[in-house]
Amino acid sequence: MITREGPPAVEKLLAKARLPAKTAMRRHPLYHGKIQVVPKCCVKSLDCFSIWYTPGVAEPCRAIQKNKELVYEFTNKWNTVAVVTDGTRVLGLGDIGPEAAMPVMEGKALLYKFLGGVDGFPICLDTKDPEKFIETVKLLQPSFGGINLEDISQPKCFDILDRLRAEMEIPVWHDDQQGTATVTVAGLLNALKIVGKDIGDVGIAVIGAGASGICTAKLLIKAGADPGRMVMTDTKGILGRHRPELKATHRQKWEMAELTNAEGRQGGTAEAMRGMDVVIALSTPGPGTISREWVQAMAPDPIVFALANPVPELWPWEAKEAGAAVVATGRSDFPNQVNNSLGFPGIFRGALDVRASTITDEMCLAAAAELAACGEEQGLDPERILPSMEDWEVFVREAVAVGMKAIGQGIARTPFNEQELYRRAARMINESHATVNLLMDHGFIFVPPEAAGDGHGRHC
Amino acid sequence: MITREGPPAVEKLLAKARLPAKTAMRRHPLYHGKIQVVPKCCVKSLDCFSIWYTPGVAEPCRAIQKNKELVYEFTNKWNTVAVVTDGTRVLGLGDIGPEAAMPVMEGKALLYKFLGGVDGFPICLDTKDPEKFIETVKLLQPSFGGINLEDISQPKCFDILDRLRAEMEIPVWHDDQQGTATVTVAGLLNALKIVGKDIGDVGIAVIGAGASGICTAKLLIKAGADPGRMVMTDTKGILGRHRPELKATHRQKWEMAELTNAEGRQGGTAEAMRGMDVVIALSTPGPGTISREWVQAMAPDPIVFALANPVPELWPWEAKEAGAAVVATGRSDFPNQVNNSLGFPGIFRGALDVRASTITDEMCLAAAAELAACGEEQGLDPERILPSMEDWEVFVREAVAVGMKAIGQGIARTPFNEQELYRRAARMINESHATVNLLMDHGFIFVPPEAAGDGHGRHC
Repeated sequence: MITREGPPAVEKLLAKARLPAKTAMRRHPLYHGKIQVVPKCCVKSLDCFSIWYTPGVAEPCRAIQKNKELVYEFTNKWNTVAVVTDGTRVLGLGDIGPEAAMPVMEGKALLYKFLGGVDGFPICLDTKDPEKFIETVKLLQPSFGGINLEDISQPKCFDILDRLRAEMEIPVWHDDQQGTATVTVAGLLNALKIVGKDIGDVGIAVIGAGASGICTAKLLIKAGADPGRMVMTDTKGILGRHRPELKATHRQKWEMAELTNAEGRQGGTAEAMRGMDVVIALSTPGPGTISREWVQAMAPDPIVFALANPVPELWPWEAKEAGAAVVATGRSDFPNQVNNSLGFPGIFRGALDVRASTITDEMCLAAAAELAACGEEQGLDPERILPSMEDWEVFVREAVAVGMKAIGQGIARTPFNEQELYRRAARMINESHATVNLLMDHGFIFVPPEAAGDGHGRHC
Repeated sequence: MITREGPPAVEKLLAKARLPAKTAMRRHPLYHGKIQVVPKCCVKSLDCFSIWYTPGVAEPCRAIQKNKELVYEFTNKWNTVAVVTDGTRVLGLGDIGPEAAMPVMEGKALLYKFLGGVDGFPICLDTKDPEKFIETVKLLQPSFGGINLEDISQPKCFDILDRLRAEMEIPVWHDDQQGTATVTVAGLLNALKIVGKDIGDVGIAVIGAGASGICTAKLLIKAGADPGRMVMTDTKGILGRHRPELKATHRQKWEMAELTNAEGRQGGTAEAMRGMDVVIALSTPGPGTISREWVQAMAPDPIVFALANPVPELWPWEAKEAGAAVVATGRSDFPNQVNNSLGFPGIFRGALDVRASTITDEMCLAAAAELAACGEEQGLDPERILPSMEDWEVFVREAVAVGMKAIGQGIARTPFNEQELYRRAARMINESHATVNLLMDHGFIFVPPEAAGDGHGRHC
């Protein structure tokens, strides 16, 4: 943690920030991939193949033909999520294409398994046409229990998500929208506890009206924020009824323009932030996108979420010096990382375990509330608003909260009770960790000498 | 092995044949799937995710953007094969749909990993439209190193294979065509050694002009069989120039009608088999599709391959009684099983290791020749024409033969020498077995009590 010592030299910080990239370029060609397919059924002799393959397999096939739902009992569909992209907006890198997106999607699949016990599989599609993308994902449905959309450019990502949610029978999730929104809401709930304010009583500026900004604003409203006291900006300034041109060009933005900004503010980021209790920036990487002066002009004890990656809209120490009571970023090397990885593994664990047909906003809010509760139990302070991922129980509790909410909403197809859900999720996640440890201990996964120590705080 | 004791009661045999189906119905819901996604990279602490995921992962992404070929170095694409079907011709079950095809495709993925060290992944597509199927598979290309087409009805399967082979950069394989053909040729090469005949001098009847029959006939011709002395049949009788209607309706059959049957035979299966040295039946499940009398009317020491599943065109003991010198079937409970599993795992291991752009007929023939050589070294007799799959080195040698042929044909992108290829393939296949054993030994894969003994000859 860097900021506790005061502002370090930017050069030193940037050198540290470049280290993962250097290590990644050494490690990626060493491992030739991050995930593999491994049997999960007993194979004691070749005779077993007469059960798992022909001729025995014909009988489960016939049973599924008669009752399609049995595919969830007889195959791994129930635990499998396609991590799908077209490579048009990968990380902060833009449209780098589906091949170049593969390391990210494999990484996501790794996180799904390690953190949530979910079998994620990377699918990078060789098309930029949203119609072809939608059609292809729909055709993939028989093999998967869920769809995780990732790194798709906007505005097409909105329509793709809406269409696929409406037209598919399995949960479809766009992590850049719902994932970011869920973890941001969780962080804000706890930040507000620290400054002693209520979500219904605060003014919130949301800087950036991209996929994550709009979805976060909507989820904040569902969580109790007053839309009238919310102000959003895009690159052309504050959204509001004074920008009727959005009606034709940006349906999603116009919806927010009508819903928010009751006082009819106009102007840019400075005007949006003035007097606000909270600023959530999901905009252009900084530093310098947000100035200290704008933070100084906020309400007392302001909360500053500067979530652009790789460099936040302003450095955390700048925000602190300008009076911010709580500061969060998207980076792991500052306190209060708003990290999507806190969300999707547990959320999908819960949705898959109860075989939910979709993931509703209410399930996202249940996840956010449970994340916030975990964080509070671990002990809140201004530099610790979210729970640590080191505590794997966080993901289990999140899964249970999501699953129970789905059951409550009547969209679960396998209703368990809370204890059963907890046991299932805990077993899946524990086994996932234990499997990786076993493979490392027995030399099936190479452990670099520099990572072989106690493991804590060391890079692979 | 049943036939060594003479003809058993058919009822007893059928009861035995039903056992795998019964066990499969117990085991499939117990395991909830046959494959899973497992990390293959080091994860010693959550810090590792800054290498495998953001921010570190951005650097390998940028590198692939500059040089697409690096996706083979930085991700698992190089070892990943999509097992793709539309569910229109699954096993002998017909058009049972993509969900009901999942147990078979997962089983195939299991075989790919266990026997070949290849990461197979099931993709069951929700369309019967061949154009949509082709387009979808092409869009999947960035994530996969190869495509295994499976259980697609004919005639569309021919066009699908041809189009995808022509239009994709990665190897595309239809196991029902090339896989069956390769293993059948291997078996026939050794059967001919037993009866002391040369492939160029024999008459061959191919009963059944489906996907596997046509592809097998073509590969036999490439292996040296005389097309003029070959006779094929479909459900309407012998193919030949006397059936010009095929020209318009069945391009593939017409091609064979022109190429084979130089003497202009007409009639049905009986007429096709008369005086022939070899009959290869890939037609309608029996018994009774082929009669003893037709075998008696073949040349001396006839070779009978009755490959229909689940029940061969005639029972092996019937063929023997009628004078067959060598009999092969598709079943594991008779001697001489012509089993596709002897082919695809090793063939793809070799093709992937040298990063071949396609799998040529010559690579199939190299695989068949190596399989035949392995069988000969293990010791040939009329009830043992193919090598045992228990000897995992068979798959390694097959991979080396396929890889070296690809290098020789100039279609390999990573030329290794023979020793390197052998070491790579051996390591991959060994590790795959060892991983499953490790997971079983440590309780991560449940071992049913009845399978927990020495493992040999026991069902899972």
